[in-house]
Amino acid sequence: MRHDSAACAARMNRLRAGFSEADALLILGAKNIRYLTGFTGGDGALMVGPDWLILLVDGRYVTQARAEVPGMEIFEFRNRVEGVAAVAGRRGVGSVGFESPLLSVEEYLRLKEALPEVKLRPLPKGFELFRAVKDDGEIDRIREAARISGEALAAVREMILPGVREEEIALELEYRMRRGGAEQVSFETIVAAGPDAALPHSTPGRREIADGDFVMIDYGAVCDGYHSDETCTYAVGHASDRQREVYRLVLEAHDRAIRAVRAGVSCGEIDRIARACLAEAGMAGYFSHGTGHGVGLDVHEAPRLASGREEILQAGMVVTVEPGVYLPGVWGIRIEDTVLVKQEGCEILTRTSKELAVIEH
Amino acid sequence: MRHDSAACAARMNRLRAGFSEADALLILGAKNIRYLTGFTGGDGALMVGPDWLILLVDGRYVTQARAEVPGMEIFEFRNRVEGVAAVAGRRGVGSVGFESPLLSVEEYLRLKEALPEVKLRPLPKGFELFRAVKDDGEIDRIREAARISGEALAAVREMILPGVREEEIALELEYRMRRGGAEQVSFETIVAAGPDAALPHSTPGRREIADGDFVMIDYGAVCDGYHSDETCTYAVGHASDRQREVYRLVLEAHDRAIRAVRAGVSCGEIDRIARACLAEAGMAGYFSHGTGHGVGLDVHEAPRLASGREEILQAGMVVTVEPGVYLPGVWGIRIEDTVLVKQEGCEILTRTSKELAVIEH
Repeated sequence: MRHDSAACAARMNRLRAGFSEADALLILGAKNIRYLTGFTGGDGALMVGPDWLILLVDGRYVTQARAEVPGMEIFEFRNRVEGVAAVAGRRGVGSVGFESPLLSVEEYLRLKEALPEVKLRPLPKGFELFRAVKDDGEIDRIREAARISGEALAAVREMILPGVREEEIALELEYRMRRGGAEQVSFETIVAAGPDAALPHSTPGRREIADGDFVMIDYGAVCDGYHSDETCTYAVGHASDRQREVYRLVLEAHDRAIRAVRAGVSCGEIDRIARACLAEAGMAGYFSHGTGHGVGLDVHEAPRLASGREEILQAGMVVTVEPGVYLPGVWGIRIEDTVLVKQEGCEILTRTSKELAVIEH
Repeated sequence: MRHDSAACAARMNRLRAGFSEADALLILGAKNIRYLTGFTGGDGALMVGPDWLILLVDGRYVTQARAEVPGMEIFEFRNRVEGVAAVAGRRGVGSVGFESPLLSVEEYLRLKEALPEVKLRPLPKGFELFRAVKDDGEIDRIREAARISGEALAAVREMILPGVREEEIALELEYRMRRGGAEQVSFETIVAAGPDAALPHSTPGRREIADGDFVMIDYGAVCDGYHSDETCTYAVGHASDRQREVYRLVLEAHDRAIRAVRAGVSCGEIDRIARACLAEAGMAGYFSHGTGHGVGLDVHEAPRLASGREEILQAGMVVTVEPGVYLPGVWGIRIEDTVLVKQEGCEILTRTSKELAVIEH
C-alpha cells in the first residue's frame, strides 16, 4: 500500500475506540499490521496502547519499517514472543487483547510463561470484521486489480483450445496479469478442464483441454496489496444440452444471490438464496462450499457468506458470490464475481461477462 | 507429490513409533498431511490412531482426497474443529497430541469446549524435525527444483542491465522457472537493486538498475511439492574496491559455513562460523538474520541454523547457508546455497556459481 497516514490514523482510532477492554492490543496478522500502519513486511507484531504504539520487527525488516512508517517507534526482536514480552513489561500492561485465530498455541504458551502476571484475552469475534468495510482508496485498488485481471483473461481466452494444457493457460494468465501491472497474483490460478473442473480447488496440471470440455478458471490479481477474485467457466467447441441447462442454473443462482446483496442483509441469507436456487433443480447436493467471502488485503477474509452466518452486510464491504455445481468425475461449473456492497444493491467489480461462452475452434 | 504409498507408509510408522504418548494424533499442517498421505489439498486434518487413520476434509476436497489417497477413510466436515471433535468422539480417544505451532488459540479453545474430557497435548518440540531428514525421492525433487531454477536464472542474467526495473527481472525469472517445469515458484522472488539490496526481504518494485549497483536475487522453484532456495548477488558494470572486499568477505563466510556442514554438527555452530567470519572484519553487526533453514515441502522449515540452536545436523537434511551484509541506504550482499547434509561434508544442490560476477554492458 502506498503509505496513507490519514487512513492509517483513522483505522487506529477506530481500533482504540472499539477494542479498549485490555490495557494493550497485540496485533500479529501481517495484513492487519499493514492496514493499521502501512508496514508491508511479512512478519512482525504491533502493540497498541491507549497513547502509545510500537512496531516490533526482526532484523530483516528494521530498515524497511523505518522507511515505510516514518516516526513509528520500532522495536527489534530476535524472537517475536520475547519481543512482545519485553515491550509489555516495559509498558507495565496488565492485560493484552490478541487475535486468537492468528496466535498459535505454541506462541501463546510461551507468552503466558514470559508474562505470568498479564491477562491474555482473545479479541472478540467482531474483530474479524475490522477490515471488512473498505474505504474509497481500498475499493479503487480492488477495482484496479479486477481490471488488470479481467484484461489478462480476455487476452488468454483465445488459448483455450483442445490440446492446450491447463498449466499453460494458468502460466500465461498469471504472466499477463503481472505484465499488466499486478504486483502478484491473488492465489495460485485454477485452470481445470473436463473432470478436473469437478474439483473445486484443482491444481492446474498437464491435462489437455478436449473438445466439449468445460474449462473453469478461478484467478485474480493483487494491486497495491488488494486482491480481486473471479471465476469463469467456458465451454470448448460445443456444449451439450445438459451442460447448457446446468450452466443456466448456476448462473441463475449467481444472479439471484447478487440481486439480493445490499446493506442490511445477512451473509447467511445470500448463501441461502444461491443454495435454494440450486435446490429447486435438485442440484444443491453438488454445491460443496460456501457462496462467498470477503476480499481485500487477503483474498479470503471476513465476512463469510455461508449457511447460518449472521453477520450483516454493510455498505463498503467487498465480497465474492460464487455458486458452483461439481459432478465428480464428469465436469464442474463455478461462476464468481467480486462485488461491492452498497446501501441499495451492489456493484460488480469483476467485469468479465458471465453468459455462457462457447469457444469455437 | 506423485503418490508414493511406500514412502507414506514408512513415515506413518515412524510417526506412530515416535509420538505414541496420546491415544491419537491430530495433524493439521497441510504439508505434514501431504507428507504422511500424499493428499495435496490446502486444508484439512489427519487423525492418526494406533490402528486407524482418517483424513478430514471439507466439501471442496472430497473428490480430490478420494483420488489422491485411494483406500483412505475420508470424513467430510463443514467446520474443522467440529469434524475433529466428531471423529475423536466416535473413536473414544482420551488424549490427542497436536502441532501447537499450527493450531490457533481460537481453534484450540473451541476444540477444548467440544471435547471437555479429552486431554489436548502439544506434540514435543522434536516433531518439528519430523520431515527434516529427506529420503532419496525428496532429494531428487529438490535437486530438480534447483536445476530448473538455476537454468532460469542463467537465462535472465543478460537482462540485468542499467535501466531495467527490478519487477521486470522478477517476472521474467518466475515465468522462465514455470516454463522450465516448476509447478510454482518457491516464494515471491526478490530482485533488489542498489539501496534496495540493503533490505534483506525487499519486494521487487519499479526501481531501475543503475551502473555500479549490486543486484540481489533470491529465488527458487517448486518441483512436485519440493522447494529450492538460492540467492545470487551480481555487480552491474563495475564493482568498487569496497564492494569487492565485502563480497569476498560474505563469500568467505558462506564457504566456511558450508565447509563445516556435515552430520553431527549443531545448527548453531554453522551460524557461529558464518558470523565469526564477518566479525573478524567488524561486519557482524550488518548480518541481521540467521544463517539458514531447512528446505523441503516448505521453503522454510526445521531446522533453523541460528545462534544457539542445538539441533544436530543429520545426513539427509537439506538446509540453506545464506550469510549476508546489509548496509542501510547503500547496498547489500547475500550469498545463499541449498545444501544436502552428508555423513562427511555436504553436497551443494543449487549450482549457480557464487564467485563475484560483474555483468558488463
